[in-house]
Amino acid sequence: MNKSFLIRSIYRNTNEYLSKEVKITGWIRTLRSSKVFGFIEVNDGSFFKNIQVVFGDNLENFKEISKLSISSSITIIGLLVETPEAKQPFEIQAKEIIIEGLSDQDYPLQKKRHTFEYLRTIAHLRPRSNAFSAVFRVRSVASYAIHKFFQEQSFVYTHTPILTGSDCEGAGEMFKVTTLDLHNIPKTEEDSIDYKKDFFGKETNLTVSGQLNAETFALAFRNVYTFGPTFRAENSNTTRHAAEFWMIEPEIAFADLSDDMELAEDMLKYVIKYVIDECPEEMDFFNQFIDKGLLDRLNHVINSDFGKITYTEAVEILQNCGQMFEYPVQWGIDLQTEHERYLTEEHFKKPVFVTDYPKEIKAFYMRMNEDNKTVAAMDCLVPGIGEIIGGSQREERLDVLKSRMAELNLKEEDYWWYLELRKYGATKHAGFGLGFERLIMYITGMGNIRDVIPFPRTTGQSEF
Amino acid sequence: MNKSFLIRSIYRNTNEYLSKEVKITGWIRTLRSSKVFGFIEVNDGSFFKNIQVVFGDNLENFKEISKLSISSSITIIGLLVETPEAKQPFEIQAKEIIIEGLSDQDYPLQKKRHTFEYLRTIAHLRPRSNAFSAVFRVRSVASYAIHKFFQEQSFVYTHTPILTGSDCEGAGEMFKVTTLDLHNIPKTEEDSIDYKKDFFGKETNLTVSGQLNAETFALAFRNVYTFGPTFRAENSNTTRHAAEFWMIEPEIAFADLSDDMELAEDMLKYVIKYVIDECPEEMDFFNQFIDKGLLDRLNHVINSDFGKITYTEAVEILQNCGQMFEYPVQWGIDLQTEHERYLTEEHFKKPVFVTDYPKEIKAFYMRMNEDNKTVAAMDCLVPGIGEIIGGSQREERLDVLKSRMAELNLKEEDYWWYLELRKYGATKHAGFGLGFERLIMYITGMGNIRDVIPFPRTTGQSEF
Repeated sequence: MNKSFLIRSIYRNTNEYLSKEVKITGWIRTLRSSKVFGFIEVNDGSFFKNIQVVFGDNLENFKEISKLSISSSITIIGLLVETPEAKQPFEIQAKEIIIEGLSDQDYPLQKKRHTFEYLRTIAHLRPRSNAFSAVFRVRSVASYAIHKFFQEQSFVYTHTPILTGSDCEGAGEMFKVTTLDLHNIPKTEEDSIDYKKDFFGKETNLTVSGQLNAETFALAFRNVYTFGPTFRAENSNTTRHAAEFWMIEPEIAFADLSDDMELAEDMLKYVIKYVIDECPEEMDFFNQFIDKGLLDRLNHVINSDFGKITYTEAVEILQNCGQMFEYPVQWGIDLQTEHERYLTEEHFKKPVFVTDYPKEIKAFYMRMNEDNKTVAAMDCLVPGIGEIIGGSQREERLDVLKSRMAELNLKEEDYWWYLELRKYGATKHAGFGLGFERLIMYITGMGNIRDVIPFPRTTGQSEF
Repeated sequence: MNKSFLIRSIYRNTNEYLSKEVKITGWIRTLRSSKVFGFIEVNDGSFFKNIQVVFGDNLENFKEISKLSISSSITIIGLLVETPEAKQPFEIQAKEIIIEGLSDQDYPLQKKRHTFEYLRTIAHLRPRSNAFSAVFRVRSVASYAIHKFFQEQSFVYTHTPILTGSDCEGAGEMFKVTTLDLHNIPKTEEDSIDYKKDFFGKETNLTVSGQLNAETFALAFRNVYTFGPTFRAENSNTTRHAAEFWMIEPEIAFADLSDDMELAEDMLKYVIKYVIDECPEEMDFFNQFIDKGLLDRLNHVINSDFGKITYTEAVEILQNCGQMFEYPVQWGIDLQTEHERYLTEEHFKKPVFVTDYPKEIKAFYMRMNEDNKTVAAMDCLVPGIGEIIGGSQREERLDVLKSRMAELNLKEEDYWWYLELRKYGATKHAGFGLGFERLIMYITGMGNIRDVIPFPRTTGQSEF
């Protein structure tokens, strides 16, 4: 028997292995032993649950095995037998246990519970804990669900650039990228920075959104999506902001705001359902230990028809609801999380799209409505979190777009290629952005963005 | 009839639509008309091929339609009928054509052929051409194939960080990332740069590889992979180097170099086969117009058992083959593309793994062989390109790793977390890196990396 089996495979296809000799490898999660036999819980990372191994003093290295510390890695060959009277469905009766690698006694993930704060300081080891094993498997499965959802509908996955000379939102704190010698910045005769000497010959930043680039591809492939890292150099130390995070940005041509909302609703339901179906052990864990009521809430999302309401209607509801808010509500304000959560949790009791926001609080590329005051934007609000998706129909009319850019002092030459899309066969088109980490927080119930990113980057934090 | 159908769907499921009224949208690729009727080739981006639309002067806007310029966007409602005597299998007899957006007469992608060099200057429009429509759909489908391959085997997709304080290879030109004011760099009392004032409080770069981070996850999940952007600030103006490119880096625990090669071979075959199966129209186009013989070469790869040879044997073959090389061959040199191509194209006539390279030309983390001269590294060479994959078994022995790092003057404190993986249940493990653009060049036959990246970033080039 050469290769070891995945513990996942033994759990999922038990009948193929029962009463047979199996070989597995993994790390010791717990070990207890008496003078003549012992039990090991082994986890190989392929599955949330451990497998139980029983060993006896028939093993020639029985004493050595008995003393192994937590997280030692071992190979086990033995018989898989049913254990109808025990908590676990089966166990392995070891015939041979080979030590692969020892673990020092100071291994930090001993059995006692650790705080998430502490576990962040050992981000290289925390995926070996139950919570983070579950989080990062869900993150992986949800990533795949996103690709599957779009690819099955023939969307073209588009790798938009990370390094960019343009600033999509016309705002947003950006990271500078350079190869200049910071000890000795080259200057021009006018004493400004000589970017001609930099790698790209001009100022370059890390992208805050792939949308403008994605629009060019949507006007060629009709339906496209991005899924990649984006960056914000915002100095905000909250549980919901990271400097580096992944975003999904679909963009659809021959489509309006209502098509956009339909796509967003379908996508959210698809991904949530896929994770619940594929990760039942992990989702049970979250529901029990991280966020009671999580599964009810997610199942409710899957089975609801999302509500729809305009911004103007939302403002009226909030003004007349009798609820006290920290930020008072009047037409023109940007809705705060407290407002969003009231709408989705108290008023609608299900996810809701708010549409047609005042142009002043939205980006230049959003399509102007006929009232000339609001734009065809939509935010999707979900119970327990507030805004999870923001999108819009894009302004496809060259003259309207240009005059909007002029109002905002955006230079046409910086957007020449974006404007050209409106000259050569423009069509209505729309898209949205979904912050992937927000989605993972929503699906897992984890409360801090640092705990859904393998190696989070936030102000002052780039360890590992 | 509200929504338009995808042209892809009409081609793939023709019988569902034949003799029925259909609604499509798209951009005009060609239009010719007489006084009483006309033909339009329409492409909606969902499919490589166009669909032919016939229209007559029964349309009330017949004259207007007749004059439409290339790339105008239109909606067509009409009857789908078979055309057994024509080149195309079917056409739409238009009952109504609605103009969505006009295209200016100076649209740059007129019917005449353009050079790839020119098309790079209109990267926002080039995906509307046949070649780039094919390239970027294949890029998307190949991306999905990679995810599918790994996810079906329960590998955990791991988003390793883009912003990093560590330099994986202990070398490599990196981009600096900063929020410091370049006009006025803050200095310490000793006149060095005061990185405490920078966003992360220390020097930060763009990653050149996610491998070290991926290893931490492999030692928790057993089998993991990355797929994300990586960066090199190398000032090399070649057809094969870009400053920003995507990499796939699987990492497998309880696995040695031979498992690693098996995984690499399986993955390459899977992805190539998937693209050939899913993109037959695109692959035919490449085979006819870009690289004759492409499909034969790819099918040969799918059906070969890859060869295996050590570096030492490879050097002997090259020294005794009677071929003149620009770079003379002796034990210890890094193999050049000419050597690699000789081995795979002339000697083996199929893909081949070269293993066990001199330690001096490989990275510090590769596992030392018993001869203490070579390391357990492997490169996969393929006909037509040379090296496409580089991988190794990783050094899991703490003492050997530390002494290797000392030889190379790497500081242990910079790698504390990487070293700890060897303290807490180390196991043999291995992995490799695949440059995604190299793979796309190989699958499509495209000769320049700038033509397989939506918006390429190379020295001096960050437009769009």
